Amino acid sequence: MTNQTKKLYLNEVATRDGFQNETAFIDTDDKIALIDRLSACGYAKIEVTSFTSPKAIPALRDAEAVMHGIARAPGVVYTVLVPNVRGAERALSCNVGEVNLVMSVSESHNRSNLRMTREQSFVQLADVIGAVRGCGVAINVSLSTAMGCPMEGEVPAATVLEWMQRFAELGVNGFTLCDTTGMAHPAQVRALCARASDAFGALELTLHFHNTRGMALANTLAALDAGIVRFDASLGGLGGCPYAPGATGNVCTEELVHMLELDGYDTGVDLAAVLEAAARLPGLIGHDVPSQILKAGRRLDLHPRPAGVPGTRDMPAQRAFS
Amino acid sequence: MTNQTKKLYLNEVATRDGFQNETAFIDTDDKIALIDRLSACGYAKIEVTSFTSPKAIPALRDAEAVMHGIARAPGVVYTVLVPNVRGAERALSCNVGEVNLVMSVSESHNRSNLRMTREQSFVQLADVIGAVRGCGVAINVSLSTAMGCPMEGEVPAATVLEWMQRFAELGVNGFTLCDTTGMAHPAQVRALCARASDAFGALELTLHFHNTRGMALANTLAALDAGIVRFDASLGGLGGCPYAPGATGNVCTEELVHMLELDGYDTGVDLAAVLEAAARLPGLIGHDVPSQILKAGRRLDLHPRPAGVPGTRDMPAQRAFS
Repeated sequence: MTNQTKKLYLNEVATRDGFQNETAFIDTDDKIALIDRLSACGYAKIEVTSFTSPKAIPALRDAEAVMHGIARAPGVVYTVLVPNVRGAERALSCNVGEVNLVMSVSESHNRSNLRMTREQSFVQLADVIGAVRGCGVAINVSLSTAMGCPMEGEVPAATVLEWMQRFAELGVNGFTLCDTTGMAHPAQVRALCARASDAFGALELTLHFHNTRGMALANTLAALDAGIVRFDASLGGLGGCPYAPGATGNVCTEELVHMLELDGYDTGVDLAAVLEAAARLPGLIGHDVPSQILKAGRRLDLHPRPAGVPGTRDMPAQRAFS
Repeated sequence: MTNQTKKLYLNEVATRDGFQNETAFIDTDDKIALIDRLSACGYAKIEVTSFTSPKAIPALRDAEAVMHGIARAPGVVYTVLVPNVRGAERALSCNVGEVNLVMSVSESHNRSNLRMTREQSFVQLADVIGAVRGCGVAINVSLSTAMGCPMEGEVPAATVLEWMQRFAELGVNGFTLCDTTGMAHPAQVRALCARASDAFGALELTLHFHNTRGMALANTLAALDAGIVRFDASLGGLGGCPYAPGATGNVCTEELVHMLELDGYDTGVDLAAVLEAAARLPGLIGHDVPSQILKAGRRLDLHPRPAGVPGTRDMPAQRAFS
């Protein structure tokens, strides 16, 4: 396989993008223990928490305590979401490896998600970039609704590239293209990733897929086709879809790693360790998670062979599964 | 897109592969009404029912009544599962378009699923082929566990090709390669489909994926890469996985059609009509179905834009979804 030596870089987002949606507060010590466990799994990056207003996202009101409490594993970048200069100052005081800035490339979603126009967001994030640049901390910009807006529909690739260009001119280190509500489809992903790589190949390009319509792993294949090597994923598939109750949200880390490893990629991530961490999630958050692998097991987790003599009644009933 | 004109052929299996697992009997009239509805959706083929022993699969004990009750749409092949010569005789009396024979290519799964050794199955199915050949009814062979056995693990592609060869020599019209418990992964699918197409390209080759570990649509992309144009799918994703309670089974028709249509393929299937049919399933079978699209809607089913003035408190709360 030519994939055998292809190195991929995974960013775990469950403790930020997943936990921010949880209604019950998760104890700071439990967050720290989980992140320390994730630090041993082989991720390239962990999005630990968010330095947003505790009023806006109370679930992550312990951002400082979490960042001060976790042990830093060598080789892992600890990134945090930062919405404004105040958040950047808080983040910088916690020795973060990267700040992750977020805005939507569609106007309606940005207004709904961040209570600002896109231009207002850009001005605010440019201030953050000004405050962080030169501090030795990497700056990533996550562009939400990059593959479709749940209110406006199609988002032209040209719009995505324009916003990338504006941020690239400010000297950011990387972009995450987010399929915020699971609207991306493989042909679109292939085309957008090819254009983004052509234009901004010198920067780190990460893809953030949601499995809302079942396409997250198919879209991952398409992104790999286009040369993308960095992916966000969420332990257990944690992180819902605000527009579709009951639908899954973020692509599930263990499902992504399982497929990529089978296909011969080097994800860096230890699947067994990730599955162990994922198995603890329902107890931690008080509800089931969408992960299919947690239910079905890995591909080669085998089941007992049937007893009995073929053709006789002591065999299991004929079932005709195809 | 070069996919624009690529014609695909979908086979709906919910009323056979899905209904056979249901514990509550679905009324014959309801089955007929659903199949008539599916006949208007544009499928190339519908696997209507199974002529197995009513004792083995009581859910499908009304196979004759269903076959006699449905209206035949021009251009749709009505196929049925047939396990033995008795079943073939019953099927032939009902004017079926195709008989579908099933065995597993792994010994343990065949014993568990069909209470026979593979050799016993082959002899029995060869008898069926002898009885049906020359009657103007097509013969398809579904090879279960073609991409992995839940009891034995890896199934070598060479084993799959050997069984295909033995059946091809008996004059069958097509094969369905079944990923019975969702063990297939894309690189494997690409390789197996390429070999199967090389060796048996003159016959109809269909792929039957399960979404047990989330890879069904990714595997579909891989099969398309290898030139496969025929796919099984199940309305609502009906049809569970016997080895993993709570895990999904068959790939969901509406999710498959949704992706393929977005990617520019001509599936023949009317997505809106299929979604309407799928929405009736929970009422018919008395429980929820795994379909994500039923929950999330199609990609461009849009949501209301937010009211309020950006930057003010009358906007929705800041949420920072990425």
